[in-house]
Amino acid sequence: MGAMAQPADRTVHALLQSLFQNGVRHFVIAPGSRNTPITIAATAPGSPFKVWLHLDERSAGYFALGIARQTGEPVALTCTSGTAAANFVPAAVEARLSRIPLIFLTADRPPEARDVGASQTVDQVGIFSTHVKWAVDLPVADAGAIADLERYAATVGARAAAASLEAPAGPVHLNIPLREPLVDADSETLPFDLGAVEVRRSVAAPATPTPNEIARVASAVSGRRGVIICGPETNLPAAAITSLAKLLGWPVIADPLSGLRAGHHALDAIIDRADVLARERAFTDPATPKMTIRFGAQPLSKPLNTWLATLTDTTQIIVDPAVAVTGGWRDPDMRTSIAVAADPGAFCLRLLESLDAHSTARPEWLALWVEANAAARTALDAAIASLDEPFEGQAVVDLAGALTEGSTLVAGNSMPVRDIDSFFPTMDRAVRIVGTRGASGIDGVNSGAAGAAAVAAGPVALMIGDLSFLHDVNGLWPIRRHDLSLTVVLVNNDGGGIFSFLPQRTSMPARFEEWWGTPHGLDLSHAVVLHGGRHAILESGPTSGASAAIGDALQRPGLDVLELRTNRDRNVALHQQVWAAATEAVRHAVVAARA
Amino acid sequence: MGAMAQPADRTVHALLQSLFQNGVRHFVIAPGSRNTPITIAATAPGSPFKVWLHLDERSAGYFALGIARQTGEPVALTCTSGTAAANFVPAAVEARLSRIPLIFLTADRPPEARDVGASQTVDQVGIFSTHVKWAVDLPVADAGAIADLERYAATVGARAAAASLEAPAGPVHLNIPLREPLVDADSETLPFDLGAVEVRRSVAAPATPTPNEIARVASAVSGRRGVIICGPETNLPAAAITSLAKLLGWPVIADPLSGLRAGHHALDAIIDRADVLARERAFTDPATPKMTIRFGAQPLSKPLNTWLATLTDTTQIIVDPAVAVTGGWRDPDMRTSIAVAADPGAFCLRLLESLDAHSTARPEWLALWVEANAAARTALDAAIASLDEPFEGQAVVDLAGALTEGSTLVAGNSMPVRDIDSFFPTMDRAVRIVGTRGASGIDGVNSGAAGAAAVAAGPVALMIGDLSFLHDVNGLWPIRRHDLSLTVVLVNNDGGGIFSFLPQRTSMPARFEEWWGTPHGLDLSHAVVLHGGRHAILESGPTSGASAAIGDALQRPGLDVLELRTNRDRNVALHQQVWAAATEAVRHAVVAARA
Repeated sequence: MGAMAQPADRTVHALLQSLFQNGVRHFVIAPGSRNTPITIAATAPGSPFKVWLHLDERSAGYFALGIARQTGEPVALTCTSGTAAANFVPAAVEARLSRIPLIFLTADRPPEARDVGASQTVDQVGIFSTHVKWAVDLPVADAGAIADLERYAATVGARAAAASLEAPAGPVHLNIPLREPLVDADSETLPFDLGAVEVRRSVAAPATPTPNEIARVASAVSGRRGVIICGPETNLPAAAITSLAKLLGWPVIADPLSGLRAGHHALDAIIDRADVLARERAFTDPATPKMTIRFGAQPLSKPLNTWLATLTDTTQIIVDPAVAVTGGWRDPDMRTSIAVAADPGAFCLRLLESLDAHSTARPEWLALWVEANAAARTALDAAIASLDEPFEGQAVVDLAGALTEGSTLVAGNSMPVRDIDSFFPTMDRAVRIVGTRGASGIDGVNSGAAGAAAVAAGPVALMIGDLSFLHDVNGLWPIRRHDLSLTVVLVNNDGGGIFSFLPQRTSMPARFEEWWGTPHGLDLSHAVVLHGGRHAILESGPTSGASAAIGDALQRPGLDVLELRTNRDRNVALHQQVWAAATEAVRHAVVAARA
Repeated sequence: MGAMAQPADRTVHALLQSLFQNGVRHFVIAPGSRNTPITIAATAPGSPFKVWLHLDERSAGYFALGIARQTGEPVALTCTSGTAAANFVPAAVEARLSRIPLIFLTADRPPEARDVGASQTVDQVGIFSTHVKWAVDLPVADAGAIADLERYAATVGARAAAASLEAPAGPVHLNIPLREPLVDADSETLPFDLGAVEVRRSVAAPATPTPNEIARVASAVSGRRGVIICGPETNLPAAAITSLAKLLGWPVIADPLSGLRAGHHALDAIIDRADVLARERAFTDPATPKMTIRFGAQPLSKPLNTWLATLTDTTQIIVDPAVAVTGGWRDPDMRTSIAVAADPGAFCLRLLESLDAHSTARPEWLALWVEANAAARTALDAAIASLDEPFEGQAVVDLAGALTEGSTLVAGNSMPVRDIDSFFPTMDRAVRIVGTRGASGIDGVNSGAAGAAAVAAGPVALMIGDLSFLHDVNGLWPIRRHDLSLTVVLVNNDGGGIFSFLPQRTSMPARFEEWWGTPHGLDLSHAVVLHGGRHAILESGPTSGASAAIGDALQRPGLDVLELRTNRDRNVALHQQVWAAATEAVRHAVVAARA
């Protein structure tokens, strides 16, 4: 059969075989006619791929992103020609900035069908603009040069996989023009492996810092009062970072998406309430560091970032392998003094080798941070527990209590991820917390969670707001189709809750609700039932059993949506109330320690 | 108040005022923080805009497209920074190819916040690639040059409106960087009109053909056997085209989206069953024209296009004002002999002036077409009426019967628009039939229909398949929010019905259902209830009362979804059955006429 295959079949098979040989394991298909040869190859007898189906290309893009974020492997996805490809753009934008390896395989009409009014034919060359790392418009498979084209396709596959993985990881675009016929009598039985040439391309080892740079940094940080800041990033080396912190005697500010807030690394120096601490001048004055070293992107906390931006006498270091390339320099406040182009793990190991026991800061420094953090945490917990009405922060506490070892928590954008920052505690269980923080859009969040659920070994929870849930309601579809399990904590305040924190809520009261508050008025349980899920109202409060309800859902197969209904105005007031209690506790703790 | 406005406010107000002065009447807002100054201006006291809210930018893009398609006016739409802008790309792609004037106003972070890791900041410059006609990245409003910036913004507004309208109409992109603060104490009361300079730019008159070209065409067509072909296009000049046809004695093949199948123009030469006629060689042999003149894009009918592509001895003329620009040359079969760069209306008028009573072809020519068409129509009607099971074509007949004068029918892509081509009859009621045929995607169709419903004077119906309905379920949201009325005929065959017409249904039986048929398994009534609509099952058949049920729904406010449940395999068989009956009738009619 293989010998009878058409050139297009052989070329596409060679491309897909090369993708597999270079690390791609998951393949997402959005169905269509023009991408038929790609679908045939991906699902061929002997195909080594785990193949997923999705009916909405926008959601499919984020579903693939969720798989890639969870596995660290490049994920391939394909769609038919036309606006289908345009629907992949949002996920590409997110993948570029959040450094997720994706390989977009967009089927296209052949060149002679372009810009001549052919159906479902749009300009797909360059459709991802600067939002992919590499883009190729493949030649049409032609009988005249079959061996070379197979080698070319295998080479493109190898380069695509490598380009998607090499730091900073990100998306690539292969545009694949295909001529009819797209299927023939042999298609059904054509095996995956048509004996194409094998091309492998390895990814470079993690970038190491130069010895000179390490020596300079070691000299600068040794014995000084400093802070390690871990921002959003997949796969930061938690053990190496906490080892470095221990030797330096520094606290580690752990953004919830840094991977350092929960796990089996050393937790005693983890600061999980920096968002509160940074609000309180009685703390920030004595806690001003001489040095900071940041791994990952800028943290979520606005008070923290605002404070850090004021520290003009502090030497602020960022460590990132990609400072010189698009998306690599992540310092919007322009406070970086030294940008070290290095992999965080390699940097920590080299720096540890250059330091010794004399490098440790005086113990009062770490104690100041740890005690203030403990005071903030205790006060926040007490303030939340004392509320006798639904509070969105309580949902974070309930959810955190229900997450068992090996769980994944997907943090929705806008309010949920900020509430997770404020209220998710440090814990010694390996709980992976991820979010869509490249572009921080509210789109594609359900899909990313479904993608995580497709590959995660343990339970997967999503905490999401109502507008974001509604935006990507199609993202729920794969859960039933592919027998996935996902527990959603849906915080429903009927509109854009985060906008209530903006000045226009009070300065433009007549227009605020209509154009920013934007109540949608929907009973979202219908969306859950549409996609075959179970819906329940989540009772709020420490004695409500909410944590147990979430825990039970996490053990069940299928889709559970637990909805907490809240009020946007009250949400602002309650946040201010618990923050006030916490900052006051921090103030007392600092004063008591210094007395 | 106005004098106290910040530079950003004044610049944005000047821009929006200019958009209004240059013809923009509708403004669609997707809420956000960064686009706050744009939202404030659009909703300011005295704002002349009709402002619409949408919560999903992808759907908002198509909603705006639906308004612009219905009104012919440029529609402005705005979103916040980040992936929100990326979600506009599919609608831009469609608008470019279907020549719909849209003005995308994407709020952005200022230049210094770009590519430095700032939240919700992505590379928006060029994000629409070649899919907009004009793109500008505006300067940030700055206090130093306020008068010039206002004039600049007013000029950009005038150019944007003009560029979106000038033939071929299409989308433009204004990227608007904005610095904080985005709102101040005066924002609530700031009036729309801040006294900015007025800049108007008129759109060029429709392109006229040269006298030489008209003389050549007149000489070529006069007295010859020819066919006028009207493909998909908004606002073709039906009266002028049918006058030309009458003088030439030619039939007019009317694609359902040409606007010529229903209306108050002369209908006696309208051919509405070309899709059947082109299948029957007994007809096409004697009906082969010497000349064709096409207005609009390539017709939908594949049998028609396939036949036309074989006519190597026929002089095929296309008339289009945009043959020389992107998206303008619409002839994928490369059969055009003469491409006349002219507006269809101007072309018809000039050509009519150059012809006379001797220009008319012999009457047998038109009679052959009209009689065969009538035979096809009668046979199709009879074949459909004889079926005793649900048939998707019957839904078209039922729907057509229910559409009153002044109605709009939005044709969903994939099967519905093809069934409308096959089965929607010529009628002397002004029924506007529109579709998303630029890129022919199945996305955004509900939204386009909601946009039509937002501005149409009469009732609006949508005929759509289940996958397309599901893809854009968020497109239903504005119907309740803005008190719109829409009747949806939802043809649900639980998957991709059109794929059953592809060869892989029979050549790849083991894999077909899973990867092309793709049953979604959803009860779509839940989506209807989610969006506050009424759902009912549509009974099929001529005595079912389906037409009356659709008619009743069209008279009601709000959302009605009437769902016809069908079977994909049976759908192929039934189509083949009715086509066979119709082609046989055509064969008999031709033979009888020649006997």
